[in-house]
Amino acid sequence: MSHEQNWSLPLRGATNPSTHADGTNPGSFANPPQIGGPLTFSSPDTPGMPPPSTFTAWDFLPSGWVIECATKETGCAGHNHPEIGEHIRAVAPLDFEPITQLEKARLGLITPEMERVSAREDHLTAAQIRDEIAAGRLIIPANIHHLNHQLDPMAIGRASKTKINANMGASPVSSGTDEEVEKLRWSQRWGADTAMDLSTGGDLDACREALIRESTVPIGTVPIYSMIIGRKIEDLNEEIILDMLEHQAAQGVDYFTIHAGVRPWHLPAIEKRLIGIVSRGGSLLAKWMITHDQDNPMVTCFDKICQIMRQHDVSFSLGDGLRPGGLADASDEAQLGELSEIAKLTEIAWTHGVQVMVEGPGHVPFDQIEFNMKLQRQLCHGAPFYVLGPLVTDIFPGYDHITSCIGATAAGYHGASMLCYVTPKEHLGLPKADDVKQGCIAYKIAAHAADVALGIPGTRDRDDELTKARAALNWQKHFDLSFDPDTARALHDEDLDVDTDFCAMCGHDWCSVRISKEIQQFASGKAEGFDRGAALRSAALTDEQKEILEKRGILDPAEIHKLASKTHKATGANEEKASCHSDHVSEEQARQLQALDANEEEISAL
Amino acid sequence: MSHEQNWSLPLRGATNPSTHADGTNPGSFANPPQIGGPLTFSSPDTPGMPPPSTFTAWDFLPSGWVIECATKETGCAGHNHPEIGEHIRAVAPLDFEPITQLEKARLGLITPEMERVSAREDHLTAAQIRDEIAAGRLIIPANIHHLNHQLDPMAIGRASKTKINANMGASPVSSGTDEEVEKLRWSQRWGADTAMDLSTGGDLDACREALIRESTVPIGTVPIYSMIIGRKIEDLNEEIILDMLEHQAAQGVDYFTIHAGVRPWHLPAIEKRLIGIVSRGGSLLAKWMITHDQDNPMVTCFDKICQIMRQHDVSFSLGDGLRPGGLADASDEAQLGELSEIAKLTEIAWTHGVQVMVEGPGHVPFDQIEFNMKLQRQLCHGAPFYVLGPLVTDIFPGYDHITSCIGATAAGYHGASMLCYVTPKEHLGLPKADDVKQGCIAYKIAAHAADVALGIPGTRDRDDELTKARAALNWQKHFDLSFDPDTARALHDEDLDVDTDFCAMCGHDWCSVRISKEIQQFASGKAEGFDRGAALRSAALTDEQKEILEKRGILDPAEIHKLASKTHKATGANEEKASCHSDHVSEEQARQLQALDANEEEISAL
Repeated sequence: MSHEQNWSLPLRGATNPSTHADGTNPGSFANPPQIGGPLTFSSPDTPGMPPPSTFTAWDFLPSGWVIECATKETGCAGHNHPEIGEHIRAVAPLDFEPITQLEKARLGLITPEMERVSAREDHLTAAQIRDEIAAGRLIIPANIHHLNHQLDPMAIGRASKTKINANMGASPVSSGTDEEVEKLRWSQRWGADTAMDLSTGGDLDACREALIRESTVPIGTVPIYSMIIGRKIEDLNEEIILDMLEHQAAQGVDYFTIHAGVRPWHLPAIEKRLIGIVSRGGSLLAKWMITHDQDNPMVTCFDKICQIMRQHDVSFSLGDGLRPGGLADASDEAQLGELSEIAKLTEIAWTHGVQVMVEGPGHVPFDQIEFNMKLQRQLCHGAPFYVLGPLVTDIFPGYDHITSCIGATAAGYHGASMLCYVTPKEHLGLPKADDVKQGCIAYKIAAHAADVALGIPGTRDRDDELTKARAALNWQKHFDLSFDPDTARALHDEDLDVDTDFCAMCGHDWCSVRISKEIQQFASGKAEGFDRGAALRSAALTDEQKEILEKRGILDPAEIHKLASKTHKATGANEEKASCHSDHVSEEQARQLQALDANEEEISAL
Repeated sequence: MSHEQNWSLPLRGATNPSTHADGTNPGSFANPPQIGGPLTFSSPDTPGMPPPSTFTAWDFLPSGWVIECATKETGCAGHNHPEIGEHIRAVAPLDFEPITQLEKARLGLITPEMERVSAREDHLTAAQIRDEIAAGRLIIPANIHHLNHQLDPMAIGRASKTKINANMGASPVSSGTDEEVEKLRWSQRWGADTAMDLSTGGDLDACREALIRESTVPIGTVPIYSMIIGRKIEDLNEEIILDMLEHQAAQGVDYFTIHAGVRPWHLPAIEKRLIGIVSRGGSLLAKWMITHDQDNPMVTCFDKICQIMRQHDVSFSLGDGLRPGGLADASDEAQLGELSEIAKLTEIAWTHGVQVMVEGPGHVPFDQIEFNMKLQRQLCHGAPFYVLGPLVTDIFPGYDHITSCIGATAAGYHGASMLCYVTPKEHLGLPKADDVKQGCIAYKIAAHAADVALGIPGTRDRDDELTKARAALNWQKHFDLSFDPDTARALHDEDLDVDTDFCAMCGHDWCSVRISKEIQQFASGKAEGFDRGAALRSAALTDEQKEILEKRGILDPAEIHKLASKTHKATGANEEKASCHSDHVSEEQARQLQALDANEEEISAL
């Protein structure tokens, strides 16, 4: 039986130009380009999903700009161009000087950054990248000042491979600039495509400056954090906002998270939630709005914000200040209401020539992920979606890199363009270097699995090469092709300190791969030029190595129990007492604690 | 804006009786019961997915059995009964004595095991469990002899919660009975619902006996492993097969993996694969068939196998001997061809009164998972699907508990009933105790996330309770509700050794949850009877605890590098030499190596 005769797997992305559920092919002048087609990679739509938008960034040009068709003389009825960039471009007013990648793309220009992205993503030409940027479906977050340092341009959007972001930044309780720079290096080593400096403690300005100079990847920030250092949130005003944005833009920050979607009328819906607002920016702005009984200050000066960002080509990451903080709050009125506001802001930013991506939810049951992705696709006209996780269950603190990379894979498959990592320390404390590594790896898995599922050309090649090496029992090649060769090698050598025709799981007689080779004369990877000489004897594990391996594990079980000094038994508390916990120190006590802990001093008494 | 007015999330499981794509409601006599409805929990079908079968186990009764309708006198046209078990049952020949749960269910009986499962799964009545078993959609793997020990009956099927299996068993290279019993205890501690003894080394019989006596969960085996201890696979014959099955059934094994779906005509398709056959049982039987030029011996005596299994109520786990071993081989002719054979065997087993589950693929791109699940649902008439992973990428050895729990979540959501764990040691060696824990936790995440997504009643309650505790900043309750409280507590205390109104990630001023509480007077969990007395001061971390935390991580980065004694640099090999590796020892050398390593002796020379 050949299943291909009876079943066809759902067609995907590149091979299926009509993945849009409603089959729309807008041909009105308001919407000239053919959207969809070979440059987006989409999952099929489960029935009931929101259909794609019929608009793109072409529908939100600055006033005074006009669309021109290269094939105008042929009539161009309906602007039905198979490859949009080859045929249409915009014409700006005479004195206009383009700055942003979006503006240049609209004018039909191919920038060095587009060329570089094309070189880094084999499957895309520079012209395709330009066209995706012009449509608003792709961004190159590259501050013109950061380009003067070491920034290596990259792109975020559905036509490109799925990206991952690593968060770092000192908190008032823990870490400092040097540690954060080290985490940046470590995250780049483990594949982070962008990094966000979310510092709220230490010398914020120095840390940001150091990260920008050190990084080859785009750096994002949430500028409101710096705006309220040394002042109360209530004292925030337009001048402070614009000054700080100007400062960070001039420093070279590549994208700003701005929580301008939170509006006063969303706040009543928050009261229905189990865990209110979990975004720091969102909660601070909500407090500001309540205190002042005024609208979100990020909205009231949104045009000015756009003008500053345009001058330096800072991209928007329109923040989800009302993202859900638990499964129970997912897809609720507050979250979706904010998303529809963000959609309007996307349109406005585009009219200012600013590149936009949109941030998405953090805790979403697995079955609601596709809906969330496709609603954003519709409302925000295909602007890249940058999602945190989402976590698909709440009850595994300590393992939220796993709970969230499950959601991230589904998000990437159904529409997200960048996945913001979550580390094992999420909900518990500030990540350490190894947490950064674990978070990055979990998210490289998610991004890669999504790209393979979407059928982005070439993405599965390395998997297939590794499978061939595995089939050939070629251990060294197997490890060379793996994402973390040292760890794979160490785990292999733990039981069997020599490379041979089997591993310690089954042993010689039971190795299905060896038997399979035997019965099928199956050579694959092995046959392709690998020497078949005598066995290479490698050194046995040293005593030191053996000791390290014995310690392996995310905390040894007995050690974990020793660590858990505050379990009921360890604290000597009875059931009732332990349930009543210590979360009611006064404001003043809390500040003292924080200061003491930051100084690593002993806390002698409360 | 209320999204509920504009959008409705896709309906799920319990709330949506018509999730079947083709809307079939079979009413012929050959297929009396109403399938679907409130007792299955299904994801919506993406367009193009195979529709459900129109048959159930009711269509494959033993000869001589007849279906009787309790409401016969009312006419019963079309057998359109809303609750099947209340209205129909089968009548067996006069001298028939039921043994298996399936036989008893068919006769309308409710067994103590069904009662127990109902007590363990709040959302199901014993009558519903009986009806699901009778339909073939649920099994209770409970060998009548294992019930005499400590077995606590559990159920596998779509109506019940998603289950996870932990594999264990000594290999010729590593481990023994005591270690494996310890792993069993450890896996039960971390939530394994069943365990498989896959031993291929040590004293297989003693290990199996010890695991059966120790376990409260069902034990599965792959009996062919024991059949060829001390003999070549070529010498396997019907007598050996039936003797070993009789022996293990009498010992109390609850389910057998039997690779009877592999047939000679599938083997040519294997040659097109990158990694051939990766199932140990599948590869051994393929070798037998080629050597003897005969059909699979498990098929030729399948009726006799069924008769033995029926006598002890051993359930089938119809093995996927041709499961793909890499993304490239997924959903291929060999795999799907075997599945259609397994479907026929399912029907035969049902006519013998034997309970059946079906095993599924190990490496599948994320986008092909739904297709795989729904094809099995169709071909095997809803028999429970027991899947290994699947891994959604091949290039992360050392992290395959993560790559596979992503696939397992999607599998659980789209149709699998039990998820076979994969540990970090997959492809590399035999799991140690901590690998068992990591595998179990990753799979508890997958199973729970799927159950939440499917809307199985009550499954999200603990998530919501934890969210409320998190909102209340009630750390102790937060950790008490988490799956691994000790680890969560340890990670929290690493940075901030006191419980207060914030954590080390953001510190006091930046805690969105604290701010959210402040602005919303948000109490939730806290308000419900938790004492708001003075802060509970807990002991600071000891020096020992601090040292352990510093060692945290799945191997410290520097340590990993030290461990990787066979990286190019460490071996002193140049690029070419390292690529040419040591996998070509002779058969004899390999056996020597294995024996030496098993004895933990120094390998002095090859």
